[in-house]
Amino acid sequence: MSMDLLIEKIAAMKNPTVAGLDPKLDYVPKYILDKAFAENSDPLEAAAAALYEFNKGLIDALYDIVPAIKPQAAYYEMYGWQGVRTLAKTIEYAHEKGMYVITDGKRNDIGTTMEAYATGHLGMTAINGQQVAAFNGDCLTVNGYLGSDGINPLLKVCKEFDKGIYVLVKTSNPSSGELQDQKIADKTIYETMGEMCEKWGEELRGKYGYSAVGAVVGATYPEQLKELRAKMPHTFFLVPGYGAQGGGAKDVAFAFDEKGLGAVINSSRGIMCAYKKAGCDEHDYAKAAREEAIRMREDILSAIGDITL
Amino acid sequence: MSMDLLIEKIAAMKNPTVAGLDPKLDYVPKYILDKAFAENSDPLEAAAAALYEFNKGLIDALYDIVPAIKPQAAYYEMYGWQGVRTLAKTIEYAHEKGMYVITDGKRNDIGTTMEAYATGHLGMTAINGQQVAAFNGDCLTVNGYLGSDGINPLLKVCKEFDKGIYVLVKTSNPSSGELQDQKIADKTIYETMGEMCEKWGEELRGKYGYSAVGAVVGATYPEQLKELRAKMPHTFFLVPGYGAQGGGAKDVAFAFDEKGLGAVINSSRGIMCAYKKAGCDEHDYAKAAREEAIRMREDILSAIGDITL
Repeated sequence: MSMDLLIEKIAAMKNPTVAGLDPKLDYVPKYILDKAFAENSDPLEAAAAALYEFNKGLIDALYDIVPAIKPQAAYYEMYGWQGVRTLAKTIEYAHEKGMYVITDGKRNDIGTTMEAYATGHLGMTAINGQQVAAFNGDCLTVNGYLGSDGINPLLKVCKEFDKGIYVLVKTSNPSSGELQDQKIADKTIYETMGEMCEKWGEELRGKYGYSAVGAVVGATYPEQLKELRAKMPHTFFLVPGYGAQGGGAKDVAFAFDEKGLGAVINSSRGIMCAYKKAGCDEHDYAKAAREEAIRMREDILSAIGDITL
Repeated sequence: MSMDLLIEKIAAMKNPTVAGLDPKLDYVPKYILDKAFAENSDPLEAAAAALYEFNKGLIDALYDIVPAIKPQAAYYEMYGWQGVRTLAKTIEYAHEKGMYVITDGKRNDIGTTMEAYATGHLGMTAINGQQVAAFNGDCLTVNGYLGSDGINPLLKVCKEFDKGIYVLVKTSNPSSGELQDQKIADKTIYETMGEMCEKWGEELRGKYGYSAVGAVVGATYPEQLKELRAKMPHTFFLVPGYGAQGGGAKDVAFAFDEKGLGAVINSSRGIMCAYKKAGCDEHDYAKAAREEAIRMREDILSAIGDITL
């Protein structure tokens, strides 16, 4: 089961974190940009080449200590289909290095359209008698606003191809409460969404008790993290908001169970832009990312203790 | 204002409909597939080529009678980055033919990530001192579950580049009520989302009274269409669910104001697969699509009467 695979990687590395690869050109060292623009006259081709080079360096520096990457689709789409090609190539390269890949696309739709997203990002596309993996992520973030019609096609693909999803439950942004904290009878919307995750995952539980249906719960709302951890015992959490957005190790500790399992904590800018601090040479961007990944791992381990299967 | 442009095209053609281009390979005539597979050994390249050929034929047959296309991103992503290249090329071709383009991506995220989606799909991406249009849609469908942090970056791009969005309010699927019909105090979630749309659009109203912030409201819930039309006087509706999903002309008529404005009705499979009915030669797929588009236009006009600016 896909979530088991992530859990085993986390336990083996004693590191419950994921490196967010959300590469804006602003984050890419100048020497990489210069090379890409010298070699490509088309601006989107140049941008796509620079992002791939940047990502490759990060993956090379992280793959033996960080179990997973989380590429954010938006930053690739911003650079056109050429950028989306870099997304596909990044996933392929991370897999070559043994990393687990969570595609952060927050996709949502219904019926056959949701099937198309599920097939494209997690499954295999049937083309003229062949089965082809279009993007081949291990997990996809999704938005559950449309209800079960939007989630069921994903469950089918998760089962068939041994993949997973993370459903948005309580997001890390300041205005997440506008809708998510509103109460239906005596329950908030995020609690309702959380209950739906437990239900959707019922038949897809793995050997460590967690199902293929995870949830996104922000580090910036520690009270809710604690509440949801207790109410969603079979749902693995993907936790954004550590670092740049303000969540600390003590906050994210609420996302874990007593074995130190149950969650993976994301850091994007903190890792990608580590080299921009403290007079670091830009050529050492990957080394700085590795140092930050180690610091983050130690920071979180100090708050949650050991990780055991 | 972008929504004004759509309204003017609708009024000029007396046709408040949009052709959904959601091309699965199953929908593509065999002679187009055979040519694509003969010319491309890579299955994703072949699929992408076939989809583009199919779309081009549809656009050629529709551009003088249908004001807009709505490509559904999922069906392009299902065929990898090569499919996404076909999405970009389809948008470009539709623009060459003067059509308005609603990219159906239901994108959602927060802050700089949502900015990246807005920039990529509607705005211009800054690359090494140049401004490049990555996908260049006129409008993008979005999901508002994350609240204002997810919508504000879009409003900024809509204002700067004269574009629009459609926020999911009440979707057309059977399980849309699981969350959307739940009541917060005495208001449903879809009503709350509808009110948020009116508020988000306040400063982006055009000359016909409708703002750049539209809403997706399904044809399969006519009561709610009627209710929301009354409560959201400045919000243009994108209405899926006509035809294949069960919505009829009388149902969608509730989406319009007294001038016959206020909504655009989508048909995807009905138009794309028109040739699959009634012993039609597959070579005539575009002609069949045109006939169905005319039938649909007349069907809807018969229920709403005239369209006047």
